[in-house]
Parts: sequence; C-alpha cells; structure tokens
Amino acid sequence: MSDKKTALVISAHAADFVWRCGGAIALHADKGYDVTVVCLSFGERGESAKLWKQKDMTLDRVKAARRAESEKAAQALGVHDLICFDLGDYPLRMTDDDKYRLVEVIRKVQPSFMLSHSQYDPYNTDHMYATQVALETRMIAQAWGHNPGENVLGAPQLYLFEPHQTEQMGWKPDVFLDITSVWDKKRAAIECMEGQEHLWEFYTRVAQNRANHFQRNSGGQSGGRAAQYAEGFQSIFPRTVDEL
Amino acid sequence: MSDKKTALVISAHAADFVWRCGGAIALHADKGYDVTVVCLSFGERGESAKLWKQKDMTLDRVKAARRAESEKAAQALGVHDLICFDLGDYPLRMTDDDKYRLVEVIRKVQPSFMLSHSQYDPYNTDHMYATQVALETRMIAQAWGHNPGENVLGAPQLYLFEPHQTEQMGWKPDVFLDITSVWDKKRAAIECMEGQEHLWEFYTRVAQNRANHFQRNSGGQSGGRAAQYAEGFQSIFPRTVDEL
Amino acid sequence: MSDKKTALVISAHAADFVWRCGGAIALHADKGYDVTVVCLSFGERGESAKLWKQKDMTLDRVKAARRAESEKAAQALGVHDLICFDLGDYPLRMTDDDKYRLVEVIRKVQPSFMLSHSQYDPYNTDHMYATQVALETRMIAQAWGHNPGENVLGAPQLYLFEPHQTEQMGWKPDVFLDITSVWDKKRAAIECMEGQEHLWEFYTRVAQNRANHFQRNSGGQSGGRAAQYAEGFQSIFPRTVDEL
Amino acid sequence: MSDKKTALVISAHAADFVWRCGGAIALHADKGYDVTVVCLSFGERGESAKLWKQKDMTLDRVKAARRAESEKAAQALGVHDLICFDLGDYPLRMTDDDKYRLVEVIRKVQPSFMLSHSQYDPYNTDHMYATQVALETRMIAQAWGHNPGENVLGAPQLYLFEPHQTEQMGWKPDVFLDITSVWDKKRAAIECMEGQEHLWEFYTRVAQNRANHFQRNSGGQSGGRAAQYAEGFQSIFPRTVDEL
Amino acid sequence: MSDKKTALVISAHAADFVWRCGGAIALHADKGYDVTVVCLSFGERGESAKLWKQKDMTLDRVKAARRAESEKAAQALGVHDLICFDLGDYPLRMTDDDKYRLVEVIRKVQPSFMLSHSQYDPYNTDHMYATQVALETRMIAQAWGHNPGENVLGAPQLYLFEPHQTEQMGWKPDVFLDITSVWDKKRAAIECMEGQEHLWEFYTRVAQNRANHFQRNSGGQSGGRAAQYAEGFQSIFPRTVDEL
Amino acid sequence: MSDKKTALVISAHAADFVWRCGGAIALHADKGYDVTVVCLSFGERGESAKLWKQKDMTLDRVKAARRAESEKAAQALGVHDLICFDLGDYPLRMTDDDKYRLVEVIRKVQPSFMLSHSQYDPYNTDHMYATQVALETRMIAQAWGHNPGENVLGAPQLYLFEPHQTEQMGWKPDVFLDITSVWDKKRAAIECMEGQEHLWEFYTRVAQNRANHFQRNSGGQSGGRAAQYAEGFQSIFPRTVDEL
Repeated sequence: MSDKKTALVISAHAADFVWRCGGAIALHADKGYDVTVVCLSFGERGESAKLWKQKDMTLDRVKAARRAESEKAAQALGVHDLICFDLGDYPLRMTDDDKYRLVEVIRKVQPSFMLSHSQYDPYNTDHMYATQVALETRMIAQAWGHNPGENVLGAPQLYLFEPHQTEQMGWKPDVFLDITSVWDKKRAAIECMEGQEHLWEFYTRVAQNRANHFQRNSGGQSGGRAAQYAEGFQSIFPRTVDEL
Repeated sequence: MSDKKTALVISAHAADFVWRCGGAIALHADKGYDVTVVCLSFGERGESAKLWKQKDMTLDRVKAARRAESEKAAQALGVHDLICFDLGDYPLRMTDDDKYRLVEVIRKVQPSFMLSHSQYDPYNTDHMYATQVALETRMIAQAWGHNPGENVLGAPQLYLFEPHQTEQMGWKPDVFLDITSVWDKKRAAIECMEGQEHLWEFYTRVAQNRANHFQRNSGGQSGGRAAQYAEGFQSIFPRTVDEL
Repeated sequence: MSDKKTALVISAHAADFVWRCGGAIALHADKGYDVTVVCLSFGERGESAKLWKQKDMTLDRVKAARRAESEKAAQALGVHDLICFDLGDYPLRMTDDDKYRLVEVIRKVQPSFMLSHSQYDPYNTDHMYATQVALETRMIAQAWGHNPGENVLGAPQLYLFEPHQTEQMGWKPDVFLDITSVWDKKRAAIECMEGQEHLWEFYTRVAQNRANHFQRNSGGQSGGRAAQYAEGFQSIFPRTVDEL
Repeated sequence: MSDKKTALVISAHAADFVWRCGGAIALHADKGYDVTVVCLSFGERGESAKLWKQKDMTLDRVKAARRAESEKAAQALGVHDLICFDLGDYPLRMTDDDKYRLVEVIRKVQPSFMLSHSQYDPYNTDHMYATQVALETRMIAQAWGHNPGENVLGAPQLYLFEPHQTEQMGWKPDVFLDITSVWDKKRAAIECMEGQEHLWEFYTRVAQNRANHFQRNSGGQSGGRAAQYAEGFQSIFPRTVDEL
Repeated sequence: MSDKKTALVISAHAADFVWRCGGAIALHADKGYDVTVVCLSFGERGESAKLWKQKDMTLDRVKAARRAESEKAAQALGVHDLICFDLGDYPLRMTDDDKYRLVEVIRKVQPSFMLSHSQYDPYNTDHMYATQVALETRMIAQAWGHNPGENVLGAPQLYLFEPHQTEQMGWKPDVFLDITSVWDKKRAAIECMEGQEHLWEFYTRVAQNRANHFQRNSGGQSGGRAAQYAEGFQSIFPRTVDEL
Repeated sequence: MSDKKTALVISAHAADFVWRCGGAIALHADKGYDVTVVCLSFGERGESAKLWKQKDMTLDRVKAARRAESEKAAQALGVHDLICFDLGDYPLRMTDDDKYRLVEVIRKVQPSFMLSHSQYDPYNTDHMYATQVALETRMIAQAWGHNPGENVLGAPQLYLFEPHQTEQMGWKPDVFLDITSVWDKKRAAIECMEGQEHLWEFYTRVAQNRANHFQRNSGGQSGGRAAQYAEGFQSIFPRTVDEL
C-alpha cells in the first residue's frame, strides 16, 4: 500500500455528493488526496423530476443525463474515481453481491475517511439505507476472514454529510470544514446539476451560513476566523488524539 | 497576551481533576501548557467518608486534609496553578460574585480548552451544577460588556471528562487521549488521594480499558496504535478544521 | 383528480385501524372524506389467540373470521374502501411487488393525510415494519420516475396512531382529535372485534382519558373544551401554515 | 376580555425577537393581532460587541442604543407593545418579583400563543433561562390562587423560535410559517440592528432556506407552494383539533 | 436503627401522592412498611381552582381545606406520617434550610425506596423542581460530613410516579405494581380530593389500563396474571440483584 | 412443561456469550437453571483475526477452532445446551427458515429470561441484527397461530448484555448482577478464547469495575455490598412486581 492519502464517498443518488460534500472533495483533492465517489444509483426515478416532466422521457435517457451531469461535476471537483453502481433508486436495494462489490472498493481505496448520509431520513429511506450499508460494508472490509489475503481495512472515520432539512433527520454537525478556497469548484459542480436548478442558491446559502458557524466556533467576535464558505459533518466514531 | 498555551479545569470537588483528567493535565503540562485547576470545593462533606469515620473529625480538619492531598496531586501532575474556591459541597452553590471570580480566572488563563463534568448526574447534583456554571461563566467571559477593557474570551472547547458510571450520566466520549507517557504521574497523583483508596485500582482499570478503545478507534486489528493508558472526553462544541 | 378529500390508513393487522384510529376514520368520513384502509395482514397468527384456543381451528378459518370482523368494523366506521393485502403476519414481510401494490393504492387515493403505527415497538416488530414501509412507499409514490405518467403524490402528513403501551414505544402525541360526535360508531366497530373482547373497555378508557388531555390542552380549567372522547396522534413531518 | 387576538413574545435580549420571529410578529400584526414583545434585557453586555469596541463606551450608552434599535425595529414590525424589563444580561437573572411582573403581562395580554427560545443552548445560558421562565410564568398565570380575581390564563401554545446553530440546540421545527407577504418589514427591522450587521444576510438566507422547507412540506415538486421567505417554530404542547 | 421497613414520598403538592402512588403507599403499608409522605406545598394556588371559584375564598381557607383532604386521604391509605412543609406553590421554591429540613426527614426515615415526580414537566415546573430537590437532598443525606454523627443514608431507589400526560413528560415506566388488593383504599383516598372530582374517574381508568400492562408484561395471553388495578413507576438508578 | 427454570442466550458470534454474560450463565446454572446458548455464527470471518494471520488458514479450520473454543467455554460455564446455527458472519443474515428454527428453540426452552446484544452498534451490524431478530422471534414464539398446538411463549424479559464501548452503543445498564461466586468459571471460559487473548484482561477489568457499580447502587459507603465481580444488563421490557 502506498502512502497516498485517500477518501471515499458513498452517495445514494448521483447528485448527493455534490450538494453535501462537494467542498470536502475539492479541498482534499487539492491537498493531494485521491477521492473516490461511489454513486449507488443515479437518482433516476426519485430525484429527476425536471427531466421526467419533459416529453417522451425514458429511464435510460434520464440515467444517461444524470450520469453525464455527475461526471461533469466530479471533474469539476477533482474526483479521482467516480464509480456508478447503477442499482436503482426509490427504493435503493443491495444484494449481498452488491455489498461485496462495495467492500472491494473500500479495500482497494483504503480510505483515510469515509462520507455518507444521515442515519435517519423520513423523507428519503434510500439515504438512511445507504448509511446502514456503509456501516455494514465498512465492517466486512475489516474482517480478516473476508477474502483472506487482501488488505484489511483499518478504522476510518465515517462522517455523515449534511442532509436536506437537518433538524428533521436528527443530524448534528460536530465538525465544520472551511471550503472557501475551493468554493468556485463546488459552485461549478453544483451548476452541472441542471435538473435541480432550484437547489443551486439553496446550497450556496447553506455554505455561507455554515461559514458563520465556522467563525463562531473558532473564536466568534474575539478572533474567530472569517470563512466565507463551509461544510458541516457529523462523526460516527470517536477520535484518537495526542493533544486536546 | 503571550503565546503561552493554556488549559483550565473546573472541578466540583478537590479530587475530581485527578481521577477524571489527571492524564490530560500531565500530558499537556509536558507539552508546555500552563494548566490551571479550579476546585470549587474540597468535597469535604460528601466525598471524604473515610476521614469522617475517624474520631473527633471536624470540617476544618477534613478541608485541610483534602487541600493537602490536592496540592500534592497537583504537583505530581505538573499543574501550573491550583485554585481552591472553598465554596462548600453537598450542595455546591455559587453566588454571582463567586461566578464573577471564576470569570476572572477564565479571562486571565485564556484557555485553549476547558474541562469539566458530565451534563447529567443523578448521583451527584454538584457535578452537573459545576458544568452548568462552566457554560455560564464561559459565556460571561465572552461578553464585551463584562468588565470592558479586559481581554475577552474566544471560543475554547469545553470537554466533559469521564464521570463515575458513565452510562447513567448519558456521557458519550468522542475523543480518546493517549496518556501512556504520563501514566506514572497520574498514578502518583491518584495515590495522593488517601481518603479514597478504593478508587485507585478502579481508575487504573478505566485508563487501561480506554486504551483498548483508543486502539480500536485508531485502526483496531489492522494497525491500531497500542496505547497502554488513555482518557476519554465528550466535546460540547463543534470543531473547526481545515482537513477532515 | 377530483376535489374529493381523502385519507389512507396503513394497518399491519386487521384490527389495528379500529382501536387506534377508528374515531379519526369515522369523523373524517362524516366530514365527507373517502377513507381507505389497507390491512397488510389479518393478524391471523399473532393477534387471534382467542380463535386459536378453539378446537379444530385452521389458518383459513381464522383469516375468514378476521376478515369478516374487519369488514363489519369498516362498515360501522364509514370506511370508503377496505383493502386486505393478506401478506401474513408474525412476521409481516413485503416483497418489492407488494410495496409497488401499496404505492399504487397511495397514488390512486392521493390522501390528504396518512395514518400508520409508531416507529418503535419491541413487542411487535410487524408494527414498526409497517411504518417503515409506509415511509418507503410514500417516497416511491412521490417519484416522478416511478410509473411515469401517473399522478405523483404530494407531501401528505404521516400521523402515527396510538400504540399499546405508548411509553414503551417512544410515541409522543402532538395532536388530539375530538371524536365525541362519532364515538358511537367507534364503539360499534370495537365491538365487532369479538376475538379481542378484553380490549373493548381498555380502548374506551383510552378515548376518555385522551379527552381529558384534549381539554387540558385547549384551555384546561379556564375555558378548555370538554370533549368526552378523543384520539392522539404523532406527526412525522412539519406543518406549513399561514397563521400560528 | 375583548375578542382581540393577541400574541406574546418573550425575548432574552433586545434583538432576539427580530431575527427569530420578526416575520411572525409582522404577519400576525397584519392579521389584526396585538403582538406584545417583552425584552428581558437589552443584551447590553453580551450582544453588543460592536458598540463596546467604540471608544469611551458606557453601559448606559449601550443600553440606550440597544433600546433605540429595538423600538425602531418594533415599529417596523407593527409591534403593539414593546416592554423592556431591563434585567441585565450575561447572566440574565429574575427575582420572584420580576417573574410576577411577567405573569402580570401574560395575564393582561391573554395571548393566543407565546414565543420564546430553544430549551437548550450551551452557547447562551440566558436563552434557555428565558424559556424556563416562560414555562414557569405561564404556569403561574394559570393558577387560580395567584392574585385571585384576575383573569386566569388558558393554555396558549408556546412556540420556540429558531436559535442560532439549530442542531447544537436540539431544536426541531414542527411548523413553518410563510412570511413572504411581510418580508420587507422583517428586513427593515433587521436593518435597525446596526450593531449586528454581520447577521443581516445570515438571517435573510435562513428565511429563504426555510421557504424551501415550506415548499417541500406543502407538496414538494407536486404542487408545493412556493414561499419566498419563511420561519420555523417548535411547539411545546400538543394541539387540539377537529380535523387532521 | 430498627429493622422496620420504610418508604418516603416527596410530593410537590398535597394531592399528588394520592393520584400517582396511592396504591403503592397502601400496599406497602399493608406489608408493614412505615410510609412517610412529605407534601412540599398544599397546591393551594395552582391546584385548587374549584375552591378559588367559591366566593370570599382566602389563601388560608384553601390551605386548610387542602390540608384536611390530604390528612383524610393519608389516613385512608395507611400513611405512617404526613408532613406538610407548607412552602407555597406556583412556584415552589426551597431555601437551603428547607432542603436541610427535608434531609433530616430522609435520614430519620431511612427509606428502602423513595417516590417523586417525573424529571420533565412543561405544564408544571413545580413537579420537576421537586424531583431535582429529591435528588439533591438524597445526595446530601448520603454525605458523611453533613451533620456528622447522624445515620448516613444508603442508596435507596428513587421511583418516579406517573405524571399527567405521561408522553409529554418523557416518562417511561419500567415497573408495574399490582395494587388490586388495596384498590378500595386508593379509591377512598381519591374521593377525599373533593376539589378535583373531575380526576376521580380519570385515575381509576389509569389504574385499570396499567393493570392490562401488568398482565401483558407478566405473560400476556399465555399465563399473564390478571391484575385489576396497577401503578407504573420509572426507576432512576440501576438495581443490584443476585438472580435475573 | 416441567417446572425447570431455564434461560436462553442469543449470541451473534461464538465468543460473545462468554465475555458479555458468562457470569450470568454460570450463576444461573449454579442455581439450577438450564441455560441454552444459541450462537448464530462462529464469528469466523470477522472475529478471528489471530487465526487468519496464521499460514494456510481456511474457513473450515477457523470455524472448527471457534467451535472447539466455544464448546470448551460452554462446558466451563455449565451451559446446558450449546446450539451453533452456523449462519455465517460479517454479515450475519437469516432467512425465514433460520428464524423459524430459532423460534423452535425459544419455544422448546421456554426461557424465564433471554439475553442478547445492544440495540445499536455502528462497529458491528451483526450485533444489532441479532437483537432485532431476538425481538422478532420472541414475538413469533408468542403467536398462537404459529405452529398451533405448540406451547406458546409467555413474556420473558430480554436483557441486553454489555457491548464493547458501551457509550457508543447507547447501552445503559439498569441491573447489576453479582457474579463473584462464579468468577473462576467465567475466567476459565474466557481463557478458552485463545484467539482473543488481548481481551482476557479487558473483560476481567470490566467485571471488577461493574462490581464497584454494584456496591455503589446497593448502598455505597453506607452498607453497600462489596461484590468483587459483576455484570451489567439493560432490560427491554418493564417488570411486574408485588413490592417495590
């Protein structure tokens, strides 16, 4: 295993990685991380209303459009590898083999940290299912008896990225990341999502308001750092440190 | 304000800082931090059973014994400044002036981080009161209109150190600190607490088991770091970072 | 789509809709709503002890008896359409096709609001499974790409009706409905449930005590309205209003 | 008692009512409500950093400036009565007499609903103290034996308005209010808060994003109403209704 | 200290001990326990609406009436000692001396178990205050340094008895007590509460429905014991046992 | 059905029953209980790292080794019947037939109480899956219509035994069991687990520290019983009692 720093995003639908952690992706890519993004589905049935309102639309055309948008967004963010599992959405379901395929990706990437959805979402059961699978496959990837001989996974953090309507999901961020330096890239990626234009400004405002939270928690009116754009994340596991 | 790194412990009773964050104190002292410890009371009424079982004991003699133990323990840990507020315990109560005195200490120390008790404790209402006051005085210390002209406090993290019977307190650690290098100092400080000898081995075992948790969360059986002794803490506020 | 007001109940077992929201059904039927009730199973294995204690009982006979009771109760309540999915109970399980059948019902009904079980129930895993499916199928029914061309679902509230032993289920009502005017109908429907006679008085008392809660929350001893019978519900989603 | 519709806001500091429920105030004023606002303090010590950074500032001058801003904002919103208790902040404390004074206001206003802060706030203990007092004084106002002969309070809802950093406060909105029609008034009131200009755009973005939540919960992409600005509130008490 | 078995009830208002744990009192009295009841107030201001609606009522007359009712009820239940602290209600407040008086009672009684209110109650802040004081005084009674020489308290369970509107209080019973054998006594005590006649049937129904819960949890339809009346309690502290 | 007292442990992996409830097993065996242990898998893939690090290891050899260890440990503890379902781990999955097999065991054993894992475990989804199945199969075993004619299950308590890293699992013990008299047996069983030697001392320390909690909750410094070793458990269901 090389010393390459790596990260892995597990996204239920094609666009989630853009709105929810596009800044983290671009920032870590800038820092030399290889960031892999797995889209379990294209969100072709449930998150493509604008496309479906067009005449003569088909599932394949929606998927193709969503794939194209995702690839463009991934490029804008500096994603190292975009992997589309194409498992279908609304509902998203994974067989054992689908899960083992994801385990394989996890082991190959050996991520320093992972990113996925909130643990609860009454609006979107695909989201919470993705997180459940993220925990399950992380566990399998740690098992010495799963495909013995392969590189076993260590204990990467699983960060939960920001859901829509945070309070309804019981999501509580415990870390804010300054993404000011890569905001242009995130905005560019956001604008690749043509089918969801109504969210462009929404998530721009989210990033601006999270920057206010960044500043508050880094010192407030007494030396707090004035980030312009930030993202929030909730950690599942405790950290291990040598200094508080 | 100098570049001196500093930390502040707010301990309801004289011994709490030893069992619950003695390792963090000694470790940061080793790293060059000036660690100030405020003991709001000596725990003279409620946490000195062994002394009270002696004949002809008086409140003053208990307090003197507890003060002596605390000073000895503080020295063992490398505490920069041990401040005994001597406010009485069981119950601990603070007037506005007591609180302002604590605000004064906070502002003078300008801590990089603060340490106090869990937010809930049905066994010991002094503990949760101390944390409530820690939050309140931290807030006052941040107010530009409190003693205008003084150095206003930034936004230091408040870590909650490990209570006795963690699960009953709703305490959930999100950070483990490796204290192996300073364990001897913590054990020496623990042994200064002659009145509570029944807890010496208890908290040694806590430190050993937290080291197991440290290892698990730093990689488990795939490269996890083998700490021998560790302490756990729960953060109140989100962190602000430039890298996940 | 007509202007007909509609509601949809998703009930794990045949009798649940009677005890838990029979008043809401009868009241809204009176107000001109078409109320559709889906019984996912008859509760034939797990909720028909009295029948099974009879000699020579068979699964088919239990199901027939439960179906008859349900139909009679539905009639008493003014149910517009009672649909029995007959999926089996203890445990209740649904294939994708079963779920799509439910989605079809949801889309056809286009409910103003939906009703189902509490989200947690350690006594009865069928109940929490039904709610999980209610959320999942509501989501699918909202997807423009699911059977494109059909009428897509809006965002109806999902109310959780009252479980047995509310506190064990973590169920907390946030709305009380006065069912005094239709109590006779609910009681008549309750008495259709011959196999569970031990619960007739129980749920009558529940309705009376919820009426006390109705009065308390509508003004208490200073003008509170004296309902005689009421039902409580917990909302999953926020409301959108033009006046508080 | 007349048929006048009324509402009461209990605000820990002078500006809170503007950011957190200015829209609700203006909207209900437009609907003919008399809205009374009680500011327990001016936020003179803790929420006036910009003023304190000026030369030769005094407590009285800060309070005067904050009072002037509040009055101007109240006028912009159509507040019926702005009552400044001037109790001091950081920390806010209330004697029994202060509480009885607030009870007197509550009884005089006889509000249809009340508004106050979130129940938890580790950044600002004044906020949670205000809510605790709101519950306590609401209870006293309901007591037939408190100043017998006065009009006893019924059971008005207590809505918790939106705190800063909602997720850290455990605040979860269960109702969204469309404030589009009065946004100009809220923005005008916001701009009265000259000392906190850094929050003008922040709370404008909050209102815009809450409008997105309003639309989602009123039908989403299938007929959801397109509010431009909204506010969110959390209810403490259950509602009593005649129709779900 | 004798081998006498004892119990202690801490009741915010005069009537609480009747509705909420009258059965437990009568049952344990029957079993030979000396049960002491402390009423911190008479509930004279907030829980005596019916009396206040009478002409020419005064605080003293209300208190006298409430005292008479309580004494009669206590006698019906077989209370060993009814102690009225007469501290005032709505709001209830206790000075240090009031608390020390309660500590004195606790130490004198040396209860096998204690009973008080739920930990949260937005309708009635006196209730949660009483529980907070119950925990605080229990702790002081355990302190060897509080009035040295007195008998120190062990670690009696604190049971929280059933509040009104359980779900709103976050109260969850973990033990059901069969009170069938003493129901007549509880009902007799209930009927002493002439000022709150509207609650007689309410709490009779509560006892009947809790009996259903008793039966369910003792075996349900397979041998569950058919209690007719029961009470539920929530434990604060873990139990220590020699057999599961 | 005989009067034999019985208990049932449902363990996701072969070793769990040893670390987490070995004391409870040995103690109840000593008291004359027949204790049945079901191991759903051997933990062959995920909990046998030490074995897999050996050369030429195979799945069958790991399973054989784990089976041998488990049998030896079961014997040391006095287990009446050790049943290995051999369903595979990481992930553990159960078909309907696997569940019905478990129901059969439950009905045959007719346990006085059951033991299984915590309800949440982000490190190990097998654990929480086992508990979910324990609740589901307990429910099926109670159904009169499941294999009519068989002995239907009553309402045994389900105790959740201690997970690793308790606080991360949201596990809160409400009962402590003194296992001092059988500690030698538990330690002997622990030492059968050769593949996980790093945990021998860990769980010895857990037992010692839980003994401290036992003492605290049985009287603390005023007559608390000095257990040397103890285990903690969390109950799912309320208890039914005749004395508090």
